[in-house]
Amino acid sequence: MGKRYLMKGNEAIGEAAIIAGCRAYFCYPITPQTEVAEYLAKRMPEVGGVFLQGESELAVSYMLFGAAAGGSKVFTTSSSPGISLMQEGLSYIAAAELPVVVVNVMRNGPGLGGILPAQSDYFQAVKGGGHGDYRSIVLAPATVQEAVDLVILAFRLAEKYRNPAMLVADGMIGQMMEPVEIPDGGETPSPEIAGHEAWATVGAKGRRQNLIKTLFLDPTLAYNLNVKLQAKYRRVEQEEVRFEPIDADGPLDVLLVSFGTMSRICRTAAQQLGRAGLRVGILRPISLYPFPAAAVREAASRAKLVVSVELSMGQMLEDVDRAVQGRAPVRFYGTAGGKVPTPDEVAGGIRALVDETRREHPAHGKES
Amino acid sequence: MGKRYLMKGNEAIGEAAIIAGCRAYFCYPITPQTEVAEYLAKRMPEVGGVFLQGESELAVSYMLFGAAAGGSKVFTTSSSPGISLMQEGLSYIAAAELPVVVVNVMRNGPGLGGILPAQSDYFQAVKGGGHGDYRSIVLAPATVQEAVDLVILAFRLAEKYRNPAMLVADGMIGQMMEPVEIPDGGETPSPEIAGHEAWATVGAKGRRQNLIKTLFLDPTLAYNLNVKLQAKYRRVEQEEVRFEPIDADGPLDVLLVSFGTMSRICRTAAQQLGRAGLRVGILRPISLYPFPAAAVREAASRAKLVVSVELSMGQMLEDVDRAVQGRAPVRFYGTAGGKVPTPDEVAGGIRALVDETRREHPAHGKES
Amino acid sequence: MGKRYLMKGNEAIGEAAIIAGCRAYFCYPITPQTEVAEYLAKRMPEVGGVFLQGESELAVSYMLFGAAAGGSKVFTTSSSPGISLMQEGLSYIAAAELPVVVVNVMRNGPGLGGILPAQSDYFQAVKGGGHGDYRSIVLAPATVQEAVDLVILAFRLAEKYRNPAMLVADGMIGQMMEPVEIPDGGETPSPEIAGHEAWATVGAKGRRQNLIKTLFLDPTLAYNLNVKLQAKYRRVEQEEVRFEPIDADGPLDVLLVSFGTMSRICRTAAQQLGRAGLRVGILRPISLYPFPAAAVREAASRAKLVVSVELSMGQMLEDVDRAVQGRAPVRFYGTAGGKVPTPDEVAGGIRALVDETRREHPAHGKES
Amino acid sequence: MGKRYLMKGNEAIGEAAIIAGCRAYFCYPITPQTEVAEYLAKRMPEVGGVFLQGESELAVSYMLFGAAAGGSKVFTTSSSPGISLMQEGLSYIAAAELPVVVVNVMRNGPGLGGILPAQSDYFQAVKGGGHGDYRSIVLAPATVQEAVDLVILAFRLAEKYRNPAMLVADGMIGQMMEPVEIPDGGETPSPEIAGHEAWATVGAKGRRQNLIKTLFLDPTLAYNLNVKLQAKYRRVEQEEVRFEPIDADGPLDVLLVSFGTMSRICRTAAQQLGRAGLRVGILRPISLYPFPAAAVREAASRAKLVVSVELSMGQMLEDVDRAVQGRAPVRFYGTAGGKVPTPDEVAGGIRALVDETRREHPAHGKES
Repeated sequence: MGKRYLMKGNEAIGEAAIIAGCRAYFCYPITPQTEVAEYLAKRMPEVGGVFLQGESELAVSYMLFGAAAGGSKVFTTSSSPGISLMQEGLSYIAAAELPVVVVNVMRNGPGLGGILPAQSDYFQAVKGGGHGDYRSIVLAPATVQEAVDLVILAFRLAEKYRNPAMLVADGMIGQMMEPVEIPDGGETPSPEIAGHEAWATVGAKGRRQNLIKTLFLDPTLAYNLNVKLQAKYRRVEQEEVRFEPIDADGPLDVLLVSFGTMSRICRTAAQQLGRAGLRVGILRPISLYPFPAAAVREAASRAKLVVSVELSMGQMLEDVDRAVQGRAPVRFYGTAGGKVPTPDEVAGGIRALVDETRREHPAHGKES
Repeated sequence: MGKRYLMKGNEAIGEAAIIAGCRAYFCYPITPQTEVAEYLAKRMPEVGGVFLQGESELAVSYMLFGAAAGGSKVFTTSSSPGISLMQEGLSYIAAAELPVVVVNVMRNGPGLGGILPAQSDYFQAVKGGGHGDYRSIVLAPATVQEAVDLVILAFRLAEKYRNPAMLVADGMIGQMMEPVEIPDGGETPSPEIAGHEAWATVGAKGRRQNLIKTLFLDPTLAYNLNVKLQAKYRRVEQEEVRFEPIDADGPLDVLLVSFGTMSRICRTAAQQLGRAGLRVGILRPISLYPFPAAAVREAASRAKLVVSVELSMGQMLEDVDRAVQGRAPVRFYGTAGGKVPTPDEVAGGIRALVDETRREHPAHGKES
Repeated sequence: MGKRYLMKGNEAIGEAAIIAGCRAYFCYPITPQTEVAEYLAKRMPEVGGVFLQGESELAVSYMLFGAAAGGSKVFTTSSSPGISLMQEGLSYIAAAELPVVVVNVMRNGPGLGGILPAQSDYFQAVKGGGHGDYRSIVLAPATVQEAVDLVILAFRLAEKYRNPAMLVADGMIGQMMEPVEIPDGGETPSPEIAGHEAWATVGAKGRRQNLIKTLFLDPTLAYNLNVKLQAKYRRVEQEEVRFEPIDADGPLDVLLVSFGTMSRICRTAAQQLGRAGLRVGILRPISLYPFPAAAVREAASRAKLVVSVELSMGQMLEDVDRAVQGRAPVRFYGTAGGKVPTPDEVAGGIRALVDETRREHPAHGKES
Repeated sequence: MGKRYLMKGNEAIGEAAIIAGCRAYFCYPITPQTEVAEYLAKRMPEVGGVFLQGESELAVSYMLFGAAAGGSKVFTTSSSPGISLMQEGLSYIAAAELPVVVVNVMRNGPGLGGILPAQSDYFQAVKGGGHGDYRSIVLAPATVQEAVDLVILAFRLAEKYRNPAMLVADGMIGQMMEPVEIPDGGETPSPEIAGHEAWATVGAKGRRQNLIKTLFLDPTLAYNLNVKLQAKYRRVEQEEVRFEPIDADGPLDVLLVSFGTMSRICRTAAQQLGRAGLRVGILRPISLYPFPAAAVREAASRAKLVVSVELSMGQMLEDVDRAVQGRAPVRFYGTAGGKVPTPDEVAGGIRALVDETRREHPAHGKES
């Protein structure tokens, strides 16, 4: 059993990394994640860890590479433009099969944009903004407690699969104060990745040298790496799908698919719509990659309409649409630029989409 | 009428930019696109243009931003890791609605990878590897002639939509010598973007100042930018879909979806399979974004099996799968790491997928 | 015969470079030299030249290296901290024997300091702030006209000796408007360094390759380079000493040694002191390296007191003291931090030093 | 009483910094000082210190600034080109009055040069290669033991005067194994600079905020800083002159002035010349700034000839010449490029200079 605290999301994210055993944090300041850095600037030295501000996000991405290659549990946090600057590095980290945890406290874009909440980096996170065939494991918390739990999980999955694991949050979760239970987990976890002796470059006294590289000029070796990576991603897709169904049983008038902060607004909107007589279920992806496609498809087969509800302009929509495979009409409700809709606005928007679909798909449309 | 030359793809790409009126080329060397840079290092001064090697790809992305903001037709070429380093900049360019042409001569990844041909940056190009809701127009040539034509088109589309336009090729097209007709186009096109006085920062004598920015702290303004961008992307999706159907009429045993170099191999493989009694059609996307979803769906509705054939590990597959909407089984055939399959290997792979599908989907499976 | 204009010093410096044939200017903005950059940003394109702002002064120093290695007359301007960032590059340029002209519009230091006039980079310029045994030719103008003439001379000397030549000015000369005669010089000079075919890397068709390098791992070759450089510096010390004696004939009560802006203040102060009965001569070094040591020594042998008058805290003082070799007492009058003294203040300061010296050296001290 | 070890100079330098209490070492690798970095990469973590490799020497200079501003004893080592890259930073450090210790294991230059021993950065170290009126305290060891002692002294002087202190050595001392006594010094010294609470930026709970800056736009404040710095340098010149006279009493045929490695060769050469009947004294500066001018002048007044003997091409010569003030002829013997002369060569060279001087100065020349 852990202890309960009232904590801000950004601080809870930092503390969770420490609980996971991380003692090496590299960062470059950018709103709205700077408070994680501030928190860890104080906290890391207290636990004998390293806090290091790099000269740029690009540098940070290779500090992560280097420290992870040395067997350390490593961590960074940044926000949208900063994460874009790490895309080359993330491709290298994935290619080298290094366990690295990255938190993106997303802000509104594109470009410099603003500092308001957004989910507009979904494609970048889930499809891979860097070059080459690789995937990051992507987790999306909806509460401060879940942020803590998923940061700890991200470290576990990064290590298990030796792969980048990314948490996508937004400034609302970062700023929100909620009660969290911080697990104490018994003994202090090691700051070193379990089993790293088998692959990390930590000195090779008495054993053969490990080598970490991403250059494979021989096409057979390059191919083999890709085959190995894809096998790993298939395993991730089998074993690591996480989602939460909310009132999503039985026949549904609408199935909302939504994650993170937006899913909390959907929950209130769904209650409003429910009181107005619509059966509204929510499927909340917790893992964005692997995407809960089977669960979405199954629920969609019981629904007259599926709506991807996003703080972006139609990104997760593509994965929802693909999952549904024509079993129900799929629509989009969302926004961008930091304008977070109220539950009323969302309820109104969903209502409008339901009405529109009934006109277009009369077979689906009769009240059931 | 233009003149016919025997040219290497990389040189043809460079010459096409000049024909399009581009007189400002920024780059950083990386195999296998360095020959474009070498060609333009000589050629740009001859036509009074600027050749400038930046200190990094990151710098290049902002040189493109700056020069395009000044109303110039601008151009860069790079290869996979170099393109990853431009992701922040491309998001800024899209946000600022600047016409910029980027060529990615893709190499095998992830990480440093190698210098062999690949199509593994499909996700990055098509979904947007940078942050925020934006899209690049993405074109994929299959021949040297088409590379010339699509570079010229890329400049036209970039200008028409004031948006990044990207050409994705690979080292095979870059190295291949093929006869090309270089259009002479009558008069020399202007090196300046048509109508740039309305928005570019080129001095404001006698008119109000133009302002180019991507920072929008006011959520209404940030939202408006996103709405405007999305309207533009909808227009692109309506007006700029390009594809080539190859023997894709009537009922099909297999529909191959494949682009670029890989589609050429598919063509030979399809002929082999045809001689063996299978009706094999190919749909070759020329624009990857916008993706020819309607055309794929229509052809898929006449096919017993759809296969996404890629020099990557299943990326375009997602767009194919989404387009098909369950109207036929969708499979993947591909490779990575620079191992380009022979037509025989592809034909064998497709044959095996056909057989497997017949076993799994006996309804689809009986020879028609 | 040239034409007469009323020009600001900073603009005159820029125009002089163009007259000298320079068509390649690299810079990074820093007050108080930014106006040179602004002037050349407009002017270089008009004369078919290159204006290029580097990403830092460090980068600029290697742009100079590269372009000079290609046989071009090259030029930069900066101010104190910016010049510090070029010290590694200047050592490389000197080692490679490349003709490069650098203008330092000195500002007050150390550190970030301020933007007011100073002569505090005397040591850096004259002794060589980079590593290794090398020298820059250093020229110091006292008027806008002389700035023009010395920039042109700097290009000539840089070429003659294939060595960096530096002009040290300050913000007062940069901002001052004075009538200048711009020589038209008959025909347009070549933007290429005369005779560069013998050493520059400009393509080697039909002749042996030139090689420009500064790495000499073989100590004999490294030694030979140094012997060659020292022989050149001895020649410079013999042939290129420049100075202006001002009322410095016959026996003197005080000899002031002062350069640049400070020497103009000394001139007025000397007239005041002269009216008060003191015989005050001025020796104004125009070349700081080579320092006019013989002239200073000769004049000092006729003086009861020598004072180094500086906008720094006693730097040229060391060269004056060394030159005088004990033939007269040597004192310092100066200031720093941008506080430019008035002629009254200087006259008062010199008067005080004269009185003090008479007390200390009564033999020297009796009125003659 | 300490313990005696057989240590390489580079390792001894690293260990000495730890003895002095330094727990923060920043560096960038460059031959021939890389072994210091290697040693401290292992040693710093053992004593709870920080080893941090920056992304460049420029970055290192500002890491030193930042960590010293936080009250930590800081240290870097580099070699000639690397030190050139720190010149801007050193000017800032001096302006901010921060205690920073820098070791320059000098290599032959200019430019990239080579990796052989040299003393060619004398001017840069002693006159200040950065901009503005500032000085570094400069110490030059001749043995591994003295390297240890002077590193410890450098920390002491840096702290006492809050000023950069530099040790100039060369690859011979770095590579040489000699017995050294490592002082144990009783209790462990603090890694924090004594009295830093009065000026360092370490949090300001319960007291007024400290401010560290180098920007002084107000000329009075800028002037005051310079006056304060000059007062400090005058105090350093009074209190911190260090030198070793070697057989330098009484009348001398030749006085050699030489430091570091070169002085060891001079010692053997002097013994040879002594056996041949010449009275040869050596004055070895241990502090290069402050230069032992009074001691040189006094000894020169008893000598028929003074020779500055250097592993450079005539740099310290200027300070020797200035110090002697005409009391004896001053000559130069030296070399560069890594060709370290043998004692025989030096003895021969000195002999030749003696003979030449006797011809030129017969009054001085008669055997005494």
